[in-house]
Amino acid sequence: MKLIIIGANGTVGSATSNELGSRHDIIRVGKTSGDIQLDISQSGQIRELFARTGKVDGVVVAAGSVHFAPLAQMEEEHFHVGLNSKLMGQVNVAQIAQAYLQDGGSITLTSGVVGEMPIRMGASAAMVNAALEGFVRGAAIELPRGLRINVVSPGLLEESVAELGSFFPGFEAVSSKRVGLAYAKSVEGAQTGQVYTVR
Amino acid sequence: MKLIIIGANGTVGSATSNELGSRHDIIRVGKTSGDIQLDISQSGQIRELFARTGKVDGVVVAAGSVHFAPLAQMEEEHFHVGLNSKLMGQVNVAQIAQAYLQDGGSITLTSGVVGEMPIRMGASAAMVNAALEGFVRGAAIELPRGLRINVVSPGLLEESVAELGSFFPGFEAVSSKRVGLAYAKSVEGAQTGQVYTVR
Repeated sequence: MKLIIIGANGTVGSATSNELGSRHDIIRVGKTSGDIQLDISQSGQIRELFARTGKVDGVVVAAGSVHFAPLAQMEEEHFHVGLNSKLMGQVNVAQIAQAYLQDGGSITLTSGVVGEMPIRMGASAAMVNAALEGFVRGAAIELPRGLRINVVSPGLLEESVAELGSFFPGFEAVSSKRVGLAYAKSVEGAQTGQVYTVR
Repeated sequence: MKLIIIGANGTVGSATSNELGSRHDIIRVGKTSGDIQLDISQSGQIRELFARTGKVDGVVVAAGSVHFAPLAQMEEEHFHVGLNSKLMGQVNVAQIAQAYLQDGGSITLTSGVVGEMPIRMGASAAMVNAALEGFVRGAAIELPRGLRINVVSPGLLEESVAELGSFFPGFEAVSSKRVGLAYAKSVEGAQTGQVYTVR
């Protein structure tokens, strides 16, 4: 298959790339790295990306920012960071990708454990992650030509424990191998409208 | 208790008002009706509302619009209708209300069945409803002074079947009495971070 991985250089994107890269042609997309550069919050850049790649069999998105801060310090504009980047960035990819996907092709988005199990300073992340899962359930039933859409909700990756572990007290870290497998399940499997949790 | 119900004249707001009105002082807020008028998508108006009401014991929000359309016709700006109105309108109420709530006071938001069980043309609604539930889980663990926040996810109300039933094939309609009780559970109960589904 010809696959695009957006956010390929991140922790989750690397896990996906490592799992799928040995048996598929991967176009690696990053904000500042990879084969093609893309700021996911700019839908014009998403259109340019697909115009360059042409038809593909699958798109994985593991990109997008969210503002983390104590709830009392979260202003309206801080919520819009996550809405414009992680949420609408991924939704825009899903919407624009449809015209470039082969029949039966897949879209795989990325939410995260915080949508289900909140952490301090994570109200915006909880909102955005849950939103992505709702969007995927809603979009899956309307996609044409056997197109599929799923979302992977990774837990805290083992690679991230040193940097982020203190924000996730008591959270069992997950291996990048298991995270990569969840993306493979979405890309190479046959389901749609699913939330694949890795805990 | 002194309670604000935003969207008090809508189907869900009326159900809530009928349930809670006999034993509490209700300030009814609507876009064009009620004791005070408010466009929930304008956070400046939300600030003015609370400046007028002063301290309260609870706030219920059953307001906000979402754009319904076939997925193929959903443009980026259509998603922003729901993000700015139903989602951020309610989130802004929750954030601004905190300074006006008595200790132990409650915030009750409104999502909907479509977040869990999608319908055609409802991708944005599914996204926004799920987002509200994620936000509530995230915010609940950070609220000070015993403040509580929950969200009610009503099913299709019996009163709405004539107008909307064809969009909800096979959905069992719920009575306004049961919907009102769910809001009472949030306002008069003691839990926080909960999604009260009425199905």
